[in-house]
Amino acid sequence: MSDCSAKPSAPRRELCPVAYADFKSADTFPLELGGELPSLNLRYETYGTLLPDKSNAILVPHALSGDHHVAGRYLPDDTKPGWWDCFVGPGKAIDTDRFFVIGINCIGGCQGSTGPISIDPRTGKAYGGFFPEITLGDIVRAQRLVIQQLGIKKLHAVVGGSMGGMQALIWCADYSAEVGRIAVLAAGLSQSPMAIALNAVSRACVETDPNYRGGHYAPGEGPVSGLAVGRRLAHISYLSSASFEQKFGRARVLGAQPNNPVFWQVESYLEHQGQSFVKRFDANSWLRITRAVDRFDMTARAAAGALFCAHGPDVLAIGFSSDWLYPTSELRMLLAAATAVGVNAAYHEVITDAGHDGFLLPDTGLTVRLHAFLG
Amino acid sequence: MSDCSAKPSAPRRELCPVAYADFKSADTFPLELGGELPSLNLRYETYGTLLPDKSNAILVPHALSGDHHVAGRYLPDDTKPGWWDCFVGPGKAIDTDRFFVIGINCIGGCQGSTGPISIDPRTGKAYGGFFPEITLGDIVRAQRLVIQQLGIKKLHAVVGGSMGGMQALIWCADYSAEVGRIAVLAAGLSQSPMAIALNAVSRACVETDPNYRGGHYAPGEGPVSGLAVGRRLAHISYLSSASFEQKFGRARVLGAQPNNPVFWQVESYLEHQGQSFVKRFDANSWLRITRAVDRFDMTARAAAGALFCAHGPDVLAIGFSSDWLYPTSELRMLLAAATAVGVNAAYHEVITDAGHDGFLLPDTGLTVRLHAFLG
Repeated sequence: MSDCSAKPSAPRRELCPVAYADFKSADTFPLELGGELPSLNLRYETYGTLLPDKSNAILVPHALSGDHHVAGRYLPDDTKPGWWDCFVGPGKAIDTDRFFVIGINCIGGCQGSTGPISIDPRTGKAYGGFFPEITLGDIVRAQRLVIQQLGIKKLHAVVGGSMGGMQALIWCADYSAEVGRIAVLAAGLSQSPMAIALNAVSRACVETDPNYRGGHYAPGEGPVSGLAVGRRLAHISYLSSASFEQKFGRARVLGAQPNNPVFWQVESYLEHQGQSFVKRFDANSWLRITRAVDRFDMTARAAAGALFCAHGPDVLAIGFSSDWLYPTSELRMLLAAATAVGVNAAYHEVITDAGHDGFLLPDTGLTVRLHAFLG
Repeated sequence: MSDCSAKPSAPRRELCPVAYADFKSADTFPLELGGELPSLNLRYETYGTLLPDKSNAILVPHALSGDHHVAGRYLPDDTKPGWWDCFVGPGKAIDTDRFFVIGINCIGGCQGSTGPISIDPRTGKAYGGFFPEITLGDIVRAQRLVIQQLGIKKLHAVVGGSMGGMQALIWCADYSAEVGRIAVLAAGLSQSPMAIALNAVSRACVETDPNYRGGHYAPGEGPVSGLAVGRRLAHISYLSSASFEQKFGRARVLGAQPNNPVFWQVESYLEHQGQSFVKRFDANSWLRITRAVDRFDMTARAAAGALFCAHGPDVLAIGFSSDWLYPTSELRMLLAAATAVGVNAAYHEVITDAGHDGFLLPDTGLTVRLHAFLG
């Protein structure tokens, strides 16, 4: 679907994504925890060309604050490409010369798919605080509607990091005949209590902001201050002690006085992360999606043999050595659960100081491994 | 000074601390970062008997949210003993049958020593947001006034965990002739950027609470909501992934609905920690003391040979295997810096899942080691 042919003079070909499209459904979408969405909009984006037999599709579900814009630039002077541009593109690990790659904004999100900032057709107003609780299972079930509409009967692969990796596991468990292989980066079989605790405090930052008003805030009047602080905390969990040391050390903000609320470079960095996040993210979305992630738990299904199966998808688990949010031990447990039931499974570890965010950074070893796994 | 003699029928003797006393000084106390305190009050508590030659005194500086009440119960039916009762008492690691143990609430604190909730004699009102910035050096210099008033020329030891360990290092650096040995538990040569980042977000929780008012809040009208959330975050950093797993796992609060802000047991626990903390702690104290801890940096002095010296105090560094706030690597670096200049130094590691809070929990191996180190 993309027509970005390489120019002879260009040493590296740029990926031009097909501008996003919207899947629309006027059907009621029932939710796992009860309730329903009266209709559905799913914003998605594709890269590369779908073969006539539709056998080369790879779904790349995004992480907590990601979206459908996985790779490439819409315009040459876009300041940033999509969030996984280092792995998705012509000749890259997920090679868009060969594969048809799909990114879909999750339901509950705020980048075009049905979420708290969407209009509830029953009221004509934004859902806001009335948006129902969702699960990652709901998110995947909605994704599948897009895949089916595209006429794809079986995905070549689902490849995702963090919350995206959890979605890959749900595809494996719920629709194993419809996926050839899954690659799970920086996620485990369940959300650990420590990861829940970090999300819980980040939610409390939002919920104690007086502008939160139980989720019933007007657009532009939400708990931006609380969300920004909550995001600062989340950002700490994405890095590592070593990366903090390397990026900032104990450097101070030039000219800052001892009682300045932003005295250290690391403080200034986190403040900036929080401020830029609130410009693009909705607080109710943050609450819904973090709670969905916290609910993720495949341990019982894995133990009951209802997650992996010998005739199901191949599995590649990828851990990042300094990730303390989803430690490599969780990926090794995932591998053990898969191999225990005869799945063709492997584990790859990226040695990095980057922490959890390592899965978003270029890595030659991972590129080679992922490329080979995708065949 | 204590007259708690053992009753023949009691298998374990209870420690009765001497009820707290106040050191008072009407002299101006200059501060390292500029400014001064016009007068000083230091609340302290002692255990055991000071020998006539005053050679058996051990100072136990407290951690961030601790105080002078180190051990024992004032009354038999006090719900809790002092914060380090497992290590301080008759026949314990720090044996009050042999040593005279001193606990002092730090300046900047809120348990009796001069801090933001104290009355500024110049205005007749509480310092509040006008309380100046302090350093751990100031805290130690103030402590020393109490030690001098007690007539103690040389402390047998300074033993402290976390922020208390940092104070032990300052005693070693600034008053090496006045200390025989230091034991540093769960602290390093400097506050790491990651630890700063965690404190920074916890401060941001306070500072973004509208009731903070730049620190100028009336008693009882402060940023209790922000302080409680900030404390929840701090509490996460005191535990470990393994302890969260063991204490709570993924257990839910009975009857909680999916959109309940407190849904997980771990959430409920952290909320409780936050709520009980704000009943006993002042937000301005939290800001002053966390900033003082963040400023702690002895690396340059250690490198210049101005922290440890061969004729200075002996050093015992004690790390806790699952402590990710002050990882064991920091204690090993401390050991290396001490041994490099010929100090009689040793390292002891407690294997525990308890995280940073491990230093507050009973441990037989540590008891034996500490007991031997204190001679």
